[in-house]
Amino acid sequence: MATKHYLTALVKNCSGVLTRISGLFARRGYNIDSLVVCTTEDITLSRMTIVVNGDDKIINQIKKQLEKQVEVISVEELEEDMSVIRELLLVRIEATSNRRAEAINICNIFKASIVDVTPDSLMLQLTGKPQKIDAFINVVESAFNVTKLARSGASALKRGMAK
Amino acid sequence: MATKHYLTALVKNCSGVLTRISGLFARRGYNIDSLVVCTTEDITLSRMTIVVNGDDKIINQIKKQLEKQVEVISVEELEEDMSVIRELLLVRIEATSNRRAEAINICNIFKASIVDVTPDSLMLQLTGKPQKIDAFINVVESAFNVTKLARSGASALKRGMAK
Repeated sequence: MATKHYLTALVKNCSGVLTRISGLFARRGYNIDSLVVCTTEDITLSRMTIVVNGDDKIINQIKKQLEKQVEVISVEELEEDMSVIRELLLVRIEATSNRRAEAINICNIFKASIVDVTPDSLMLQLTGKPQKIDAFINVVESAFNVTKLARSGASALKRGMAK
Repeated sequence: MATKHYLTALVKNCSGVLTRISGLFARRGYNIDSLVVCTTEDITLSRMTIVVNGDDKIINQIKKQLEKQVEVISVEELEEDMSVIRELLLVRIEATSNRRAEAINICNIFKASIVDVTPDSLMLQLTGKPQKIDAFINVVESAFNVTKLARSGASALKRGMAK
């Protein structure tokens, strides 16, 4: 059964590691839903958060292959209900002054904020669970013309005390 | 002069595109500071936001090479003061009940939120400009023991009316 998997990998912060890791997915014809790579508490290491839809068995194979890479320190699959998974969204909509109140109302409901205004557009920012981001996009798209949208992809950490 | 560059590229959402694009950087021995790839308002397209430190001339060359890729629809360099650049941070710190007030104070100053609590740890979440995230990490690290940190990398959109 194809389900959404959240993989988090701690990798050495060196040139080429992203190419090799994304290659592991590409060679299987796997399309990555989202990928985030950034530095961590240790500047020699990067953390990758990869969201991929796929069969449990295949994901396990990919995980094992990831672990074999010399640049990969550790790989973990995060369970959705045991993790904090957050995304960041920036979206620009067409809205002249007479429609601003409507946009503000939507932002208030979702606790989104307005980060840029021009006479005929607004830029909205929201951080939250992927499902919340989906719901927000849905509402915004049904009411406004979306001219640009940038979604950060999931960042995730396991809940609880586990190091 | 090596400076920070924010490149945003609209690419076809197909398997292998990430490998080819990250390969362009790797072949030059360029290490990407952060990379975010995620779906956009059009599900057949992905937006990549790449942050890279480098010489203006080399970045221009990379930009031109990116534009030549068949999967790449458009590439743009975002100027920092003309764009909204945001990052998302999740960080877990060691904090027993007697130190929670101190953590809450830091969170209030930065408008960060606490997204998970255990008897001896807290998970903090902050969205903001990269500089704000840096400042927050700095303060948190000087006061607490950081056990895990995930930073989303920059998401960015140009300010103003430009489509």
